Amino acid sequence: MLDKVTHLNDLYDIYGQLLTQKQQHIFQMYYQDDLSLGEIAEQVNTSRQAVYDNLKRVANILESYETKLNLYKKDKDLSKILDRLEESIGSKNIEKSKELITLLKQNLG
Amino acid sequence: MLDKVTHLNDLYDIYGQLLTQKQQHIFQMYYQDDLSLGEIAEQVNTSRQAVYDNLKRVANILESYETKLNLYKKDKDLSKILDRLEESIGSKNIEKSKELITLLKQNLG
Repeated sequence: MLDKVTHLNDLYDIYGQLLTQKQQHIFQMYYQDDLSLGEIAEQVNTSRQAVYDNLKRVANILESYETKLNLYKKDKDLSKILDRLEESIGSKNIEKSKELITLLKQNLG
Repeated sequence: MLDKVTHLNDLYDIYGQLLTQKQQHIFQMYYQDDLSLGEIAEQVNTSRQAVYDNLKRVANILESYETKLNLYKKDKDLSKILDRLEESIGSKNIEKSKELITLLKQNLG
């Protein structure tokens, strides 16, 4: 569950700007401000069920952006190569570092 | 004009998957297969004006994704830092390379 929340927050960091203001607001209240469904329902003057449905829809939208653009996966991949590059620079392995630079450029597209 | 076409193609490479099939098709016919408005109109059985309006709409959608997500700019920025890193590795400047790795990590977010 916590993993799923962390993952949704990561996707929100990347794709949040593509959501409507209302969707951003409800996402933030639940996943960042830790309000309950009931508290959110009261704040936006709707039912608990409507809040639940909206949160589910927002999660699906964020996942569908990732399915289409893969930005989360791409960032993770770049980070891993960067870690390897940092290591090879630290050990002054110039040839290996050059290889990893080429790999980074390919991954950047 | 050519610059604008190149820029739109770059944005399409990044955000094209977020367009509908129909929007992707019309974009490809005009900007990649180099068909004229008249030829596209004939192919999709509509008016030249409708094709023009659709192309304009697609360009606006691509630009609005860039305004929200800045992925094109982000990729360009990363590329520039990578070029500098490649240079500093080539000249075996380890300290500078480490600095640039830190900068890359910050830019990756």
